[in-house]
Amino acid sequence: MSRTGIRDEAEVRFSEAADVLVVGLGCAGASAALSSAAAGAETLVLERAGGGGGTSAMSGGVLYLGGGTALQKACGFSDTAEAMYAYIMASAGASPDEAKVRLYCEGSVEHYDWIVAQGVPFKPVFYYGCSGEPPSDDGLVWSGSERAWPYCEIAEPAPRGHVPRMEHQAGPLLMQKLVAAVEASPARIASDHRCTALVQARDGAILGAVAESFGEERIIRARGGVVLTTGGFIQDDDMISAHAPLVRQCSFRVGAEGDDGSGIRLGMAAGGATLHMDAASISLPATQPWGLKAGLLVNAQGQRFINEDAYYGRLGEHALFRQEGRAWLVVDDAVFEKPDYPREVAAVGETPAALERELGIPSGSLEATIALYNRHAERGEDPLFHKSSDYLKPLVSPPFGAFDCTTEGSLYAAFTLGGLATDVDGRVLDTAGKVIPGLFAAGRTTSGLAVGGYSSGLSLGDGTFFGRRAGVAAAVKGAN
Amino acid sequence: MSRTGIRDEAEVRFSEAADVLVVGLGCAGASAALSSAAAGAETLVLERAGGGGGTSAMSGGVLYLGGGTALQKACGFSDTAEAMYAYIMASAGASPDEAKVRLYCEGSVEHYDWIVAQGVPFKPVFYYGCSGEPPSDDGLVWSGSERAWPYCEIAEPAPRGHVPRMEHQAGPLLMQKLVAAVEASPARIASDHRCTALVQARDGAILGAVAESFGEERIIRARGGVVLTTGGFIQDDDMISAHAPLVRQCSFRVGAEGDDGSGIRLGMAAGGATLHMDAASISLPATQPWGLKAGLLVNAQGQRFINEDAYYGRLGEHALFRQEGRAWLVVDDAVFEKPDYPREVAAVGETPAALERELGIPSGSLEATIALYNRHAERGEDPLFHKSSDYLKPLVSPPFGAFDCTTEGSLYAAFTLGGLATDVDGRVLDTAGKVIPGLFAAGRTTSGLAVGGYSSGLSLGDGTFFGRRAGVAAAVKGAN
Repeated sequence: MSRTGIRDEAEVRFSEAADVLVVGLGCAGASAALSSAAAGAETLVLERAGGGGGTSAMSGGVLYLGGGTALQKACGFSDTAEAMYAYIMASAGASPDEAKVRLYCEGSVEHYDWIVAQGVPFKPVFYYGCSGEPPSDDGLVWSGSERAWPYCEIAEPAPRGHVPRMEHQAGPLLMQKLVAAVEASPARIASDHRCTALVQARDGAILGAVAESFGEERIIRARGGVVLTTGGFIQDDDMISAHAPLVRQCSFRVGAEGDDGSGIRLGMAAGGATLHMDAASISLPATQPWGLKAGLLVNAQGQRFINEDAYYGRLGEHALFRQEGRAWLVVDDAVFEKPDYPREVAAVGETPAALERELGIPSGSLEATIALYNRHAERGEDPLFHKSSDYLKPLVSPPFGAFDCTTEGSLYAAFTLGGLATDVDGRVLDTAGKVIPGLFAAGRTTSGLAVGGYSSGLSLGDGTFFGRRAGVAAAVKGAN
Repeated sequence: MSRTGIRDEAEVRFSEAADVLVVGLGCAGASAALSSAAAGAETLVLERAGGGGGTSAMSGGVLYLGGGTALQKACGFSDTAEAMYAYIMASAGASPDEAKVRLYCEGSVEHYDWIVAQGVPFKPVFYYGCSGEPPSDDGLVWSGSERAWPYCEIAEPAPRGHVPRMEHQAGPLLMQKLVAAVEASPARIASDHRCTALVQARDGAILGAVAESFGEERIIRARGGVVLTTGGFIQDDDMISAHAPLVRQCSFRVGAEGDDGSGIRLGMAAGGATLHMDAASISLPATQPWGLKAGLLVNAQGQRFINEDAYYGRLGEHALFRQEGRAWLVVDDAVFEKPDYPREVAAVGETPAALERELGIPSGSLEATIALYNRHAERGEDPLFHKSSDYLKPLVSPPFGAFDCTTEGSLYAAFTLGGLATDVDGRVLDTAGKVIPGLFAAGRTTSGLAVGGYSSGLSLGDGTFFGRRAGVAAAVKGAN
């Protein structure tokens, strides 16, 4: 018998060796492998699926980059690392990792160039009017709450969603290019290989890993290090119940089958600490097209609870974690338009009073909310939540309607943000904050840039960026 | 070099042995030691302070018990295990441990008798009119949200706060009696001994522990098991930032110095999984005396966000985690009385409009909240939050005032609820849900009965109850 997820060095005989062993070929694994191979390290990538891509290939492909990238410039936007840093620190949860955010913002311009150098194409055209992934093949979008209060007062806004040139959903293209780059590099890929355990020395150092493929075991020495890049845990019901139980209500879990927390559990078994395991990105795309931002998002008490022009990642987080997934978007006839994401009309009424009756919201409450909102909106103000004046118009044109934004009736797209504690070079830290020699991690296997308040592109951004750094750090042989 | 918190069996020579080694002498450790010694196991308790007591001795001493205890009966209340189970499952967070809650409710009557048998006195008198600890030496109080919506509709309410006979604060008495019982038992106590590491076999089993006292090391074999009962992590800033960052705002951290997460970290180092590390008990005692429940608790937008008659553990959790600690209790002249817990009057005004101006709350918003509340209260209704009609009266008597319930201006008392994953016998579980042989934990070192929505007495209750079970389970020799 062994410790779960761990083989003691004394029990194993290595069947082969590499310098760097990368576990999982999503965006973080591909970036780690490319950097490690470029640093001259013999690199082997294990992927449990038949081919690379993982959750990254199921995503919209948006990378959150800024500070004045070539793409931002080509589209006529200026941006600074300082503004980007201030925005992420203010928006991305209650306790973001300052050192990671700092490095990421300072390295973002170079990182964009690196992504391009891997063969990922971007069309230097800005697309206005949608959050996150554009319907076109344009390259730059708004993908966060930069222009929404309070962030617009904290940092100069700039669009930072960098989207590979592909209509509708660019994740497959991003990963096609990154995997092709890995294939063209000296790194080797072993698909259909699942990592089942880490090999640990008595002193705690990770010496290699055990891989299983069709019932056969390979025990692989990693001279420089093992890099865990297996994704998050959105597909593991037990871990979700243990750490982020409200997420069970979400109708859509964004993640490949492999997002079952296996890498996080392997890292924990080796003594790795975890951070922010309760954090999740919850997207509620209720205000697309943007004209719907002029509606009112209300809770079960008929109260507003957020500025409706905040990014859909922020809307979803507030609606799920603070309102328990009870929310409706109230519009009048002037604001009404067909939502981009199919969404039921929960109720219609000739007056706010009729609408609230229809919704089962307490008598007088939605009426009071609309009356107060209208009074302020007439003066172009929203002193409660500071929605931008672009979206402030009194709701006065009957009929009034409410779109269903409850977890039962609406798309809530969720993935986890918590994971292993790592330093800026992807070294996994133990519960005393000490490095576990030979063990690295990146991407959603770690707690990264965002620990809440999600802006699209932060996960592909930090997976690729810190994946690269982990690959370089693990390539230093003889560390263990 | 070793793994943090772990010594490999091959590196150590045991200097002595016991059957059961208990780490920490708070309520869980005392209960574990008493049970283990009663089961005939040679028991040694390590306590890092100069004497036993820990956080339990700093507490109010309330034990949440029910199902028809002798004390409940003596006070004229009937209760059932089913009602208690339904209440805890509905109120104590989004994902309570059903098996633990079930056993606890079914064993609660016997557990009360056991507590009494250890010499802890209870006066069979019910005290009406305060939440949690009474100012008298009376034995039974309401200590949760049983009579508040929605719980009053889910389960038959009964008072379940069992308080040892001591005025004002009964924790010291509870622990004096439990520690005296341990001293009178065959169990030995080694105070000024800090546990610095667990001794782990290659197969993962815990064989013993390393204790440090004034620079000297003792390496102690535990034939049956090591029981970690070192408390939670409210005193560890890094862990708080990593798992429950908003708790940093709380003005008062309820915990002895030893509540630094050491036991949780030792358990994790051995491969133990953790649960609900973001969960915390947040007490906001804003509605004491109870007449203040007739006030309105409002947020920075002047909106109500909870039924004010909910227990102060629930008020605090909502105010901190959902309103970011921005809250005020609004009263009129009729409701106003001097709060039991000193609390600043943040503003006074002759009208709701004047009050909201004074508070800096958006114009018209508090006015609308009060108007709507009054309209419903006149009919004895609160359709928004279902506050009991006992506390529903229109706020119409000037002057109006607001008590400061912000984290800056008010007492928020916090302690952590997350910890090691354990089964109902205190066995620590690894990341695959498998038992780590020889390792046990209880009390706030574990995730217990409440993972949110705190009712007072659940921690002393589950610490003593599951401490006892862990002591019995660890007393079975030869398990490892």
